[in-house]
Amino acid sequence: MSLDARKQTAKDWFLSLQDKLIAAFEAVEDAAGPLYADRPAGRFERTPWTRGDGVADEGGGVMAMLKGRVFEKAGIHFSTVYGEFSEEFRGQIPGASEDPRFWAAGVSLIAHTRNPHAPAAHMNTRMIVTTKSWFGGGGDLNPMHPAYRDESHEDAVAFHAAMKDACDAHDPTYFTKFKQWCDEYFFLPHRNEPRGVGGIFYDRHDSGDWDADFAFTQDVGRAFLDIYPRLVTKRMDQPWTDDDREAQLIQRGRYAEYNLLYDRGTTFGLKTGGNVASILSSLPPEAKWP
Amino acid sequence: MSLDARKQTAKDWFLSLQDKLIAAFEAVEDAAGPLYADRPAGRFERTPWTRGDGVADEGGGVMAMLKGRVFEKAGIHFSTVYGEFSEEFRGQIPGASEDPRFWAAGVSLIAHTRNPHAPAAHMNTRMIVTTKSWFGGGGDLNPMHPAYRDESHEDAVAFHAAMKDACDAHDPTYFTKFKQWCDEYFFLPHRNEPRGVGGIFYDRHDSGDWDADFAFTQDVGRAFLDIYPRLVTKRMDQPWTDDDREAQLIQRGRYAEYNLLYDRGTTFGLKTGGNVASILSSLPPEAKWP
Repeated sequence: MSLDARKQTAKDWFLSLQDKLIAAFEAVEDAAGPLYADRPAGRFERTPWTRGDGVADEGGGVMAMLKGRVFEKAGIHFSTVYGEFSEEFRGQIPGASEDPRFWAAGVSLIAHTRNPHAPAAHMNTRMIVTTKSWFGGGGDLNPMHPAYRDESHEDAVAFHAAMKDACDAHDPTYFTKFKQWCDEYFFLPHRNEPRGVGGIFYDRHDSGDWDADFAFTQDVGRAFLDIYPRLVTKRMDQPWTDDDREAQLIQRGRYAEYNLLYDRGTTFGLKTGGNVASILSSLPPEAKWP
Repeated sequence: MSLDARKQTAKDWFLSLQDKLIAAFEAVEDAAGPLYADRPAGRFERTPWTRGDGVADEGGGVMAMLKGRVFEKAGIHFSTVYGEFSEEFRGQIPGASEDPRFWAAGVSLIAHTRNPHAPAAHMNTRMIVTTKSWFGGGGDLNPMHPAYRDESHEDAVAFHAAMKDACDAHDPTYFTKFKQWCDEYFFLPHRNEPRGVGGIFYDRHDSGDWDADFAFTQDVGRAFLDIYPRLVTKRMDQPWTDDDREAQLIQRGRYAEYNLLYDRGTTFGLKTGGNVASILSSLPPEAKWP
């Protein structure tokens, strides 16, 4: 397959994954029980955006936001961006020092549930092209209630098993490696605590077999699409107390700290003229630092 | 005056300024009207802390936190820290490349008011010693309600006048220079908006006359001590609506973005083993990103 065909194939997949995730989230909104009777089932609002100054075509995307009842706030974004890396970034990106042009497409998801018993989550998969080409992404589970913030909790176990299945279908070494990478990456050093209960994270992934790498990235998306809505559905109708909510809001503060202090996607995006609304859509709808 | 005597003099002043500010804030808590009848007047809780591994003496301070009724959350912290800058920071600090030892003392204040009509504020003054010695600091007003977020609003005008008086008593060029520095420093580029309505900011300030520079730094502290409690007192009993509160919580989100993305004190402190609790005490008690 030519490079152009690969780009098109990956782009089509990311766009279809965005659609599938949106449909799955809206189905969860529909299925919510009596706890949510005073709120209507939420629907995503899709907002197309373009990048750049309006003269040069530098890509863009579709930001999809949900302010729902089960999902207090969720963003599922598709984007294709291209152009030239600034001097500042060329040395930091594989293959960009020789030629600053890049192309990137991907889908990113962040979900904050209303029910403190139901986990928040993050998922992102992307294809990047410079003079080299690679995939990156992963998914991680971020329960906000202390009772669920342990890798041995059944929800965390189920999430890890789903990510492991996606990995094992491609390479028996992936899961251990990418799980550790996730644990190291989603960590708050100043608090000496993890952001959530983990999952997988991979980047600059190029095995030499594009078809295999693309198939793996697809499977990560499919695995998340299957497991995360199921975990939310399992917890969404469980009643919660004011104390549960307070604990959730405080943990969300830690989540905001991570994203603003450490998350490379956030800081990179804000410094390279990304779409501020979609970059910062990861911030929790409400948080506390009492 | 010897360098040791200067350090002691500055340290004594910062400690006494912390006491004066705490007394002024507690007096405001006492003076609150019927809107706050269901809450007791708040009192600061002082927590001493020490820096380092417990073997080498690397200083410490007194963190003072108020969870009050007028002040939903306020921190007024005194610290004296000393030791050696890490390799990473030596090149960035005046006089530290020759000799990595440093000494710093100061007081820092952050206040988040409950009433959306009453402004939040920040103040910090400090003395730093490496092979050089200088002062830094300033004060800035951060109204969270859109109706007050304009430099021409009477509250902003009064705050700027107070800062100008403190500056003008020492040098007619200070106010213009330090006001502009404040506007440039407390700015969110990704939002293209200022953090608040400004004030003054100065750093690496060494006119060659230590006594004059110390007197100026004292006057900045005294000016803030006078004007800010007066502005809060003026607004605290003004009734507010749910919409006012919502606007305040959203603006507080922007405040958190600034502190975690750009504030040098925050990022520097977290990366150099500062006291996490006092560094992050600037984060708002409650914030929204709806």
